[in-house]
Amino acid sequence: MNGAESLVRTAVAAGVDVCFANPGTTEMPLVAALDSVPGMRGILGLFEGVCTGAADGYGRMTGKPALTLLHLGPGFANGIANLHNARRAPSPVVNVIGDHASWHLAADAPLTSDIESLAKPVSCWLRSSGEAARVGQDTAEAIAAAQSTPGGVATLIVPADAQWSDGGQVGRVVAGDASQPAPLPSGDTVDAVAGALRGAQRPAILLRGSGLLEPGLGFAARIAAACGARLLCDTFPARAERGAGRAAVERIGYFPEQGAETLKGLDLLVLAGSRDPVTFFGYPDIPSRLAPEDCRSLTLAEPTEDVAGALEALADALGAPAFGTVAAKSDLARPTGALDPGSMGAAIAALQPENAIIMDEGATSGLPHYVMSTGAPPHTYLALTGGAIGQGFPCATGAAVACPDRKVIALQADGSGMYTLQALWTQAREGLDVTTIVCSNRSYRILQIELARAGVAEPGRNARGMTDLSTPPLDWVSLSKGLGVPAVRAEDADTLVRELERALAEPGPSLIEAVL
Amino acid sequence: MNGAESLVRTAVAAGVDVCFANPGTTEMPLVAALDSVPGMRGILGLFEGVCTGAADGYGRMTGKPALTLLHLGPGFANGIANLHNARRAPSPVVNVIGDHASWHLAADAPLTSDIESLAKPVSCWLRSSGEAARVGQDTAEAIAAAQSTPGGVATLIVPADAQWSDGGQVGRVVAGDASQPAPLPSGDTVDAVAGALRGAQRPAILLRGSGLLEPGLGFAARIAAACGARLLCDTFPARAERGAGRAAVERIGYFPEQGAETLKGLDLLVLAGSRDPVTFFGYPDIPSRLAPEDCRSLTLAEPTEDVAGALEALADALGAPAFGTVAAKSDLARPTGALDPGSMGAAIAALQPENAIIMDEGATSGLPHYVMSTGAPPHTYLALTGGAIGQGFPCATGAAVACPDRKVIALQADGSGMYTLQALWTQAREGLDVTTIVCSNRSYRILQIELARAGVAEPGRNARGMTDLSTPPLDWVSLSKGLGVPAVRAEDADTLVRELERALAEPGPSLIEAVL
Repeated sequence: MNGAESLVRTAVAAGVDVCFANPGTTEMPLVAALDSVPGMRGILGLFEGVCTGAADGYGRMTGKPALTLLHLGPGFANGIANLHNARRAPSPVVNVIGDHASWHLAADAPLTSDIESLAKPVSCWLRSSGEAARVGQDTAEAIAAAQSTPGGVATLIVPADAQWSDGGQVGRVVAGDASQPAPLPSGDTVDAVAGALRGAQRPAILLRGSGLLEPGLGFAARIAAACGARLLCDTFPARAERGAGRAAVERIGYFPEQGAETLKGLDLLVLAGSRDPVTFFGYPDIPSRLAPEDCRSLTLAEPTEDVAGALEALADALGAPAFGTVAAKSDLARPTGALDPGSMGAAIAALQPENAIIMDEGATSGLPHYVMSTGAPPHTYLALTGGAIGQGFPCATGAAVACPDRKVIALQADGSGMYTLQALWTQAREGLDVTTIVCSNRSYRILQIELARAGVAEPGRNARGMTDLSTPPLDWVSLSKGLGVPAVRAEDADTLVRELERALAEPGPSLIEAVL
Repeated sequence: MNGAESLVRTAVAAGVDVCFANPGTTEMPLVAALDSVPGMRGILGLFEGVCTGAADGYGRMTGKPALTLLHLGPGFANGIANLHNARRAPSPVVNVIGDHASWHLAADAPLTSDIESLAKPVSCWLRSSGEAARVGQDTAEAIAAAQSTPGGVATLIVPADAQWSDGGQVGRVVAGDASQPAPLPSGDTVDAVAGALRGAQRPAILLRGSGLLEPGLGFAARIAAACGARLLCDTFPARAERGAGRAAVERIGYFPEQGAETLKGLDLLVLAGSRDPVTFFGYPDIPSRLAPEDCRSLTLAEPTEDVAGALEALADALGAPAFGTVAAKSDLARPTGALDPGSMGAAIAALQPENAIIMDEGATSGLPHYVMSTGAPPHTYLALTGGAIGQGFPCATGAAVACPDRKVIALQADGSGMYTLQALWTQAREGLDVTTIVCSNRSYRILQIELARAGVAEPGRNARGMTDLSTPPLDWVSLSKGLGVPAVRAEDADTLVRELERALAEPGPSLIEAVL
């Protein structure tokens, strides 16, 4: 057994059986091991950002890591932006990066680079596995690190000679096993939060991690019913269970004024796996912290703790009712007439089937849907956690691999979508059940807003050019077809409703360009 | 004058007047300064790898840096792969990266990351400009570093508050001015090399940098005529002047056996701005060094020295004739019949106009053209220096911006092309005169060869999947049209000849998918 085989055997034994890959020469022994060792599914992405974003989406939906298989420093670098998002989720991901044979590094061949310096900013765990005999155990430790609560990006560099040399040994995952629950906060902490909630006038709970999933969300609903606390989540949650029959959770607004408005009047903010909220960017004369000055922030559970368990303990400490307040089922009308972010959001909310997974990288165009879908059939919501655009197509791809029996709906801004459109090809190849709606407003709309915020009332030629995508217009129908995904264009709400209904009724990938 | 304006003013004053940009919120003051300061041309790329690859191509053709303008760590990360190629070229490039306002970093907002760790591996110069008053001088130093011989990638991080705050001062480029020639090697070095050449039986000169440009190439031809030395270049030169009337330079073969074959029998290898050649990758039982064991390597000029000047001095020391041996003009027939890399190369060689710029990221499909075009009309050849695929479309884009009066022909492998196809949109927007031929073999052909080299005679399902791009086939005509570039498909040599002739006769971008 060579080192490469020991890596794949270790992963499969640990239940890690999907590999989003774009390998090169230095990964050939690993590619061979994907076949010589049974049980691993290799999925090709035509760009590394597709692989890393897909691993993020897969990790969010399964709670366990996929492997990525990437080629040296430059190949890894192409995956960094979506690993940044995965780090912010945080999602379990195990990157496997090939390196030159150890004795070839000194030759400084063209593809040599400092992989560790590139990997450090996105990795919670990072190691170069120097010899075949160590690769299996290093793989096990990478998986353990990725699966530790709340999840993380682990990066394992494997020189080519460590892959091809004999002496590989299967490693065993001993820590971070997903079956081992994270620790609960102390009883004192729970009691202190319960006391503070009882004494607060206008409290809120900021949910993250398992606080936004079942059963944690149900515990949060009980707490809200017991003490009247509002339930909040970050502007861009990694994953939230939503819809009729579940607690309605308000998102903190994106722009600093909106975020401050969300938190206005609060005197207590309980942090359940979350951090005290801050503005997305720094602006002149606006503080980083979003909560009111006189609002106290109190931590119920750290991200590394069992957030859902902490919420249950808090609900019990508050003597909360068995069932909390949940969103009622909406009767959503299908929109007609002009197509805009509102009617687009209404169309999706009206048609999304039960148990859908909504991947929202709709940017400014995606905002209305979130509110409109509060009473839609129960569904999962995924957002762009780290702000590194180009996550939507890949993350939807990974979610569809993770959940082949669920319909994935991707709400995709056009500017962001251009970063990683290659993911559509993987959707086509793998026959993934993803319906994408491209929000085709032909601009970096959010930057047009930011320019105005920065005091540029009438942008000049260069500034207009930096935010305009209309010259020439991107033809998403043509792009999608070029990647093997059937596509249509909708220029009014009626067409969008009709085409979306058709797309959702058919299995496999499809794309609708919604011209806004 | 705020910090952002001081940056743009400094650059324009130093003759740096093109900015390949994909900005975000933290770069808005810089975007505004692109208009408030006259003289800078902003060019939008829809993905950062387009911007950095374009800056590389621009730098290769002009010898001076363009700016890139990139958004925080993740935006920069998307540009790293092509900066790796630029580093290996090496090309002059100045990256400008916005960062959060300094006081906002502690908030650890979603887009916060360790930009310096990401930038270090590709940067010869790296600094974060902490206050408005320093931005101008830091910009000047970045430009100087980028323009030092042989060129380099300089990276300047500018926090948003340093951009928007008043107190900016224009910096002055005092070192690395392009008008200051690099030092010559010592007379002793030149004499020693001349003596070694006189004593050698089978010498060769490995040219890099200005040794592959005029007038350096002419000096090399004189040396070859004087002592019978063969003229060689790296497998992937950054830029080489070629064609009828110029010295014919052999490329070192790509695979280690091919590379060793190129150097077989040599007893002296003179390094003119180059390094002792090594294999592209490490393979079991194959040494890193390509030259024969008994071949002596001798340095005429370091990359940091004046390579062309050193060659002239060497030619004089050898008493070389005034004119060296050059390639004769070929009379190239237009191919007919089946389309394969050979007939494709022949078609391009037969039709490429005088003074064309050939960007070759054709990978395995591009090889025949190089040999066939030795006697084509004088032209410039650009190659993938660092092995980080996805360079062709962007580098061709930058070369076309640099040389609006020259025809750019991009030979683009399909697998590599998928990395940065967004560059076609920039070609369409800017009306750039680039004719792209996509080598559509629907596979990572080179990896199929590498798999076989690694002993995988019959690839299994996963390995086949990792190298096959035919399911579904990429439709490059549709992709190109989706990005605003007219496109046609050629399935035989006659069609390719006809369509290439038509495309070359028309200004502006076009694409031909050559199905191989």
